[in-house]
Amino acid sequence: MQTNNQHVKAALLIIGDEILSGRTQDKNTSYIATWLNEAGIQLSEVRIVPDIEDEIVHAVNRLRAKYDYLFTTGGIGPTHDDITAEAMGAAFELPVHNHPEAYARLLAYYGEENFTDARQRMTRVPEGGELIENPVSIAPGFKIENVFVMAGVPKVMQAMLEKLRHHLKGGRKVHSKTVTIHAPESVIADTLGNIEASVEGISIGSYPFYHEGKVGAQIVTRSVDQDALTQAQNLLVAACEASEWEYDTE
Amino acid sequence: MQTNNQHVKAALLIIGDEILSGRTQDKNTSYIATWLNEAGIQLSEVRIVPDIEDEIVHAVNRLRAKYDYLFTTGGIGPTHDDITAEAMGAAFELPVHNHPEAYARLLAYYGEENFTDARQRMTRVPEGGELIENPVSIAPGFKIENVFVMAGVPKVMQAMLEKLRHHLKGGRKVHSKTVTIHAPESVIADTLGNIEASVEGISIGSYPFYHEGKVGAQIVTRSVDQDALTQAQNLLVAACEASEWEYDTE
Repeated sequence: MQTNNQHVKAALLIIGDEILSGRTQDKNTSYIATWLNEAGIQLSEVRIVPDIEDEIVHAVNRLRAKYDYLFTTGGIGPTHDDITAEAMGAAFELPVHNHPEAYARLLAYYGEENFTDARQRMTRVPEGGELIENPVSIAPGFKIENVFVMAGVPKVMQAMLEKLRHHLKGGRKVHSKTVTIHAPESVIADTLGNIEASVEGISIGSYPFYHEGKVGAQIVTRSVDQDALTQAQNLLVAACEASEWEYDTE
Repeated sequence: MQTNNQHVKAALLIIGDEILSGRTQDKNTSYIATWLNEAGIQLSEVRIVPDIEDEIVHAVNRLRAKYDYLFTTGGIGPTHDDITAEAMGAAFELPVHNHPEAYARLLAYYGEENFTDARQRMTRVPEGGELIENPVSIAPGFKIENVFVMAGVPKVMQAMLEKLRHHLKGGRKVHSKTVTIHAPESVIADTLGNIEASVEGISIGSYPFYHEGKVGAQIVTRSVDQDALTQAQNLLVAACEASEWEYDTE
């Protein structure tokens, strides 16, 4: 993986009626967010759209223009509701063909007799797209310009993501430190604002919780600069001690 | 709750760096999707954006224009990163004030001595906004035109959603039936396409799974028309019997 000193930003487009109907809880977002962060890429926006071509095309064209990378999940299977490849063709204004290498792989996997029309659908790729290998269930994803089209099934998506590592150019990794403070968020709010303003290059997020009748907040400080992070963490711990707030550091 | 015969569509905007960093797994989407569906409202798009005012404003203005309702979660707490109220003011081009009723409720809850500036931030509402009651932790959400601004903490969000029931006008409820078929998705694909084409007013989704080395797919048929749903379900079961696919109905 190459790295540079710039912020590299990505978006994720989740294509799937099953998430919007509430039937399936999305688990790909947190996995991809964490994986990208490790790779020095910041997930900056997520959209979930239904299996409707116009919606996919609109989102793809907006997000691929706005961010360094766009990752998509879902809609590349063999059934009538799997329309991602055709939608990508429409977004890029490119014809969509059976990709010869994808065709050869699936033909070898299924055998000539069982290589049905439905299964052949899984070889559709817009012209010029490069395959993303699928070690789990063979049918590949594809990359076209800065867009990476992956499966929606988490196990398959995760395997495809690993195959992408050498295609991606990451920036500086964002590090974080967390302090859990057992005091109401509204009591510690001013302290957080002051620390954020006083240390350059950090951002502080406050995530309140209610657990067994007790209130508190997890305070997450993020920065690409480890020294700034340590400085902010020390200020936060000192504030907890001074105010006699119970706290835990991770 | 009023109902009508039209499709009523909603979007959800999740405001929160914690989801985009991968730190927190979003659980509000599936809850809201299911709750809205029960109310005859179809969740049609979700966006997750960071705590950046321009990003929030852009998404709010796009989504409130496109859908009947927009729900937002997150960013209405007392800390410096809670910028949703100000961003809503910017989106609607309205001034943002301390809402007198919200102010009175929080003053009564905290007492004058402890009603800090940070806590007063939680009373900020764009001019003309109506409060959404918060029975869990008092600090309210608000409604402005067709936009409903709620907390991000799931327990608080869920309580707020219940308070909204009488504000929402639902359409016809989408019903669904699920058949789990223990055969590869690519084998059943043609059957699904044929059934979808032959029964009016239904949509069929196919969600493949890999579990303990076995493959299969959950086939979910959706419709506002119960008779059409039953007809499609019968066709699907007949196809399973004819092809000797193992299946379970829910």
